[in-house]
Amino acid sequence: MPKIVDHQKQKVKLAEAAWRVIRKLGMEQASVRHIAQEAGMSVGSMRHYFASQSELMVFSMELVAERVGSRIRNMTFDGSAIEDIQRLLRQIIPYDENTRTEMEVWYIFTAKSLSDTSLQPLAHRVYDQLHQLVGMLMEHLQKSGLLRPDLDTDFEIERLYALVDGMAVHRILRPGRVDAPFMDRLIENHLHTICSSQALVALQDKKDVPT
Amino acid sequence: MPKIVDHQKQKVKLAEAAWRVIRKLGMEQASVRHIAQEAGMSVGSMRHYFASQSELMVFSMELVAERVGSRIRNMTFDGSAIEDIQRLLRQIIPYDENTRTEMEVWYIFTAKSLSDTSLQPLAHRVYDQLHQLVGMLMEHLQKSGLLRPDLDTDFEIERLYALVDGMAVHRILRPGRVDAPFMDRLIENHLHTICSSQALVALQDKKDVPT
Repeated sequence: MPKIVDHQKQKVKLAEAAWRVIRKLGMEQASVRHIAQEAGMSVGSMRHYFASQSELMVFSMELVAERVGSRIRNMTFDGSAIEDIQRLLRQIIPYDENTRTEMEVWYIFTAKSLSDTSLQPLAHRVYDQLHQLVGMLMEHLQKSGLLRPDLDTDFEIERLYALVDGMAVHRILRPGRVDAPFMDRLIENHLHTICSSQALVALQDKKDVPT
Repeated sequence: MPKIVDHQKQKVKLAEAAWRVIRKLGMEQASVRHIAQEAGMSVGSMRHYFASQSELMVFSMELVAERVGSRIRNMTFDGSAIEDIQRLLRQIIPYDENTRTEMEVWYIFTAKSLSDTSLQPLAHRVYDQLHQLVGMLMEHLQKSGLLRPDLDTDFEIERLYALVDGMAVHRILRPGRVDAPFMDRLIENHLHTICSSQALVALQDKKDVPT
């Protein structure tokens, strides 16, 4: 069904054009005309893919979430739990050029969702999915025997989630102070504080043994 | 000098009208015309106070920071360090209707700052001021003898700052899941993890003694 594939491809092309316009010119300038122009398409042809600007916005926002989700689904985990978690979180936070674009666009979308209620169900759904993901990471840490047994897991999930998102926001708003190594260190140090020191020593010993 | 006072009052009135328009209709609709209308003023009179929309935006954004700063400067600290810090952080995070308005407007402004470089110096300055404030809170905790002596203070400042901001963002984007008691608990629990348990017990004992 090449036609359906093409149709989807064109929609993605338009959504990516919307991202570029939003990042360069802001949400105020993300008009159908500007986005069509950026995608090298006429406004008439664009109407073939999206009935309204609002429909295009929801699709563009969904595409961000979809890209992040797809990268995570394709990951393989083979390191220690701490390394696995760090690698996974790098898919969510603005770690490289790709993820930084996603985060900036996401930030602008969620700011718009405060006044545009049509974007809120999607924003809420992604919040809940990421919350669930952080819950799974905490479970992974626990099952690996690394998590300190005296901790309140629910609190640790909330704390890690807020920490990661706050850091991600700082990264895009204050890039001169917060960069990728900074974020790596912050996450690693935080994970160490919630892991038992014996478990960490055992992990280090295992690493040091030549195989 | 009643004229100067009036001039400033009118500017504040316009900035608050801008906040309301931005929250209700989004940044795209925050035109000079809409804001003048919201303030009950003609576009012509509005030009008397702000030469451009951009000038009004910077002033409105500065007003958010100014309000937060002024509340903090007027605080008196008389509780335990942990209570002091919690009370102070409530001035920054979207804790009540006032602070929630400020945070939402601030979020939308910073999203705009990603494409509008004229807003970036202010966004950066506020980031740095809050960073400094969190540093002072950590110092307060340390001087009160509560902070665990084995901790890396620089890391703890970064961690608390990211945690507070992430939580604040979640509060405005997912109000159904994150509310004021949730934020109170998260901050209090986090502060307890970085305080020495003996110091906390001593604090509790002092509280239990009837005066």
